[in-house]
Amino acid sequence: MFTITHRDPASQARSGLLTTAHGQVATPVFMPVGTRGTVKALTPHELHDHGASIILGNTYHLYLQPGHELLARRGGLHRFMGWDGPILTDSGGFQVFSLIYGGIADEVKGRRPQHAQRLPDMVKVTEDAVIFKSYLDGSRHIFTPERSIQVQHGIGGDIILAFDELPPFRAGYDYTRESLARTHRWAERCLTTHRERDPGALPNPDQRLFGIVHGGVFPDLRQASAEHIGAMGFDGLCIGGSLGADKSQIYEVVAMTVPHMPDGLARHLLGIGDVDDLFEGVARGIDMFDCVSPTRLGRHGTALIRDPSRRWKLNVLNAPLREDDAPLQEGCRCYACQHFSRAYIHYLYRAKEILGLRLVSLHNVAFLLDLMAEVRAAVAAGSFADLYAAWMGKALTL
Amino acid sequence: MFTITHRDPASQARSGLLTTAHGQVATPVFMPVGTRGTVKALTPHELHDHGASIILGNTYHLYLQPGHELLARRGGLHRFMGWDGPILTDSGGFQVFSLIYGGIADEVKGRRPQHAQRLPDMVKVTEDAVIFKSYLDGSRHIFTPERSIQVQHGIGGDIILAFDELPPFRAGYDYTRESLARTHRWAERCLTTHRERDPGALPNPDQRLFGIVHGGVFPDLRQASAEHIGAMGFDGLCIGGSLGADKSQIYEVVAMTVPHMPDGLARHLLGIGDVDDLFEGVARGIDMFDCVSPTRLGRHGTALIRDPSRRWKLNVLNAPLREDDAPLQEGCRCYACQHFSRAYIHYLYRAKEILGLRLVSLHNVAFLLDLMAEVRAAVAAGSFADLYAAWMGKALTL
Repeated sequence: MFTITHRDPASQARSGLLTTAHGQVATPVFMPVGTRGTVKALTPHELHDHGASIILGNTYHLYLQPGHELLARRGGLHRFMGWDGPILTDSGGFQVFSLIYGGIADEVKGRRPQHAQRLPDMVKVTEDAVIFKSYLDGSRHIFTPERSIQVQHGIGGDIILAFDELPPFRAGYDYTRESLARTHRWAERCLTTHRERDPGALPNPDQRLFGIVHGGVFPDLRQASAEHIGAMGFDGLCIGGSLGADKSQIYEVVAMTVPHMPDGLARHLLGIGDVDDLFEGVARGIDMFDCVSPTRLGRHGTALIRDPSRRWKLNVLNAPLREDDAPLQEGCRCYACQHFSRAYIHYLYRAKEILGLRLVSLHNVAFLLDLMAEVRAAVAAGSFADLYAAWMGKALTL
Repeated sequence: MFTITHRDPASQARSGLLTTAHGQVATPVFMPVGTRGTVKALTPHELHDHGASIILGNTYHLYLQPGHELLARRGGLHRFMGWDGPILTDSGGFQVFSLIYGGIADEVKGRRPQHAQRLPDMVKVTEDAVIFKSYLDGSRHIFTPERSIQVQHGIGGDIILAFDELPPFRAGYDYTRESLARTHRWAERCLTTHRERDPGALPNPDQRLFGIVHGGVFPDLRQASAEHIGAMGFDGLCIGGSLGADKSQIYEVVAMTVPHMPDGLARHLLGIGDVDDLFEGVARGIDMFDCVSPTRLGRHGTALIRDPSRRWKLNVLNAPLREDDAPLQEGCRCYACQHFSRAYIHYLYRAKEILGLRLVSLHNVAFLLDLMAEVRAAVAAGSFADLYAAWMGKALTL
């Protein structure tokens, strides 16, 4: 399902084509996240018109509301939400385990100073299953590898993910090795469940299953997992689990993992998507990214701009924007930048008008989609290092 | 600036063309309200694409934030908000006086059971001016008729309104007569200020000024005001002030006022826009309507539908919608109805996703715009009474 079309001479970057039941995806690709069946505040047509080729849905949220059975009865998530392009769903594991760690994004990225604290009331993990309570009504739910795959069959995404255990970042080597072995056993159960499905009974008969490589920050575990998961027959691979304490450690984890992954499978770095992360990930051989950041930043009044000295971020509430007739980003072809000034968007945020977060969310998503289009063109032209330097304000080093 | 093109044989309904500096408006027309420089949650392009030909902005809110001087420096409200069609601004009086009555919409429409209570801390009214405090920061502001017109000159709407005093509904005959005399004196001051402007210094040199007919629910005062304001040289007329205790009294007030207004001037019924209000208003000779209801209902999960037995309203949170694949309104050509099911919109509201209120707000605005297009076509075809019966579920009686 994945064809590599170009390789960059100066890095591990590559471009390719991913074929799914709902169309092709040019890689490297950034996928906007529609956690609960909607990329927040945006329509599927806005996403399409601004170049989104694939979006991500979260199985945990969709399972709890509106439920995978309702989605299957309504023809699957594509039909329900009016998006007929490719969809990837995660396994639900990430969100379920975030109940344990109280915000796993911070934990995975090593941003939480305190030691991980379990919340035994909310989650229990056994060899067979994860038992958790709904954040909506406290009701009790059980996820197994089999169940996660069945739920994803009901949702109907084009790419679905294996159900994994997420150890906390500070878990240590022994805990991580033990958790890795379980994740590998669960991966086998996911593959079996997926192979035994009845495609005719599902809203999307042609789903592909990706495996997830774990191993924390430990090179031998990452190598072992990449080789093990890579040989199991998955249609593609993700890099998941605890990625490190800071950005440089995340890039190290990617660099220690990718060389052990089969070259011919697409590689998805889960949940990472700042501008520098995209460049560093592509340079190290990543094909797929997803992140909630563009819409989350948009809701909080931060617009993405082409300025590494400001970490590519502009607070639209900054006083100097009050009478600034320029668009959020000069040259941006998104709807917000084509029609509205920084002054107007600044005003909308000050007045707490919904249109403000709509426009900045759309700009931020379009910004990353356009950035990735530039990345693909540069890889195809053999000039990725030049693009890296222009965006990052420094030379590419690996 | 107003040409009548058709007259209905069975009622006072008429259709016409209103010419403004930013284009023509076919009447009868419903104008979506963009209180603070944005029709809530919608873009100007969505409004245009769904048939909006003119929108309304609120001078009181725009004066406080971002301010008419900033708007003038940025080229006026049209350029600031990216809407290049006609704009009407009110005078600010309605909102200022609502500080007195604590929600003048209810008061004007007679829905407040208790006697009007003045809030002397917030507002003071003299022959010369209204002094009020900002709802944003408590700062003290003075509006005079001259000031209201100057502020509207800075905002740059195509149609601006005279500054009027709004007596409470239960004010009684003597108070209303006294207030009416003051409103007439203020109307003269507004005309003078408008005539003495320097058009070259303004973002929109070709603004037209409408007068406002008052007189509460008293036939002789309404007649006197319609004749007085109608003879002053305004470019069009509004029916304002206290309109009655219920819908039937509002329609009576319209019926007692319109026959005394000059036939050749456009007539705007301020702030009224339920489905039945539109039909009853048109039948009595009204050309222009505005109301926040479509977007306000949208934010609260009520969709407009073609069903008089349900008062044209559908609560999208109703349980039977949970798996309803139909659009909000069968046959509706709005973006929401063309692409999304009741089931999806029901889910979006349950999940509190912003896209839900976007879609229902858009549907509701489009619904009223389409309704008015049907009204115009019926008036032109001489079949308004038939359209009235089809929508209202009863025969037209005047």
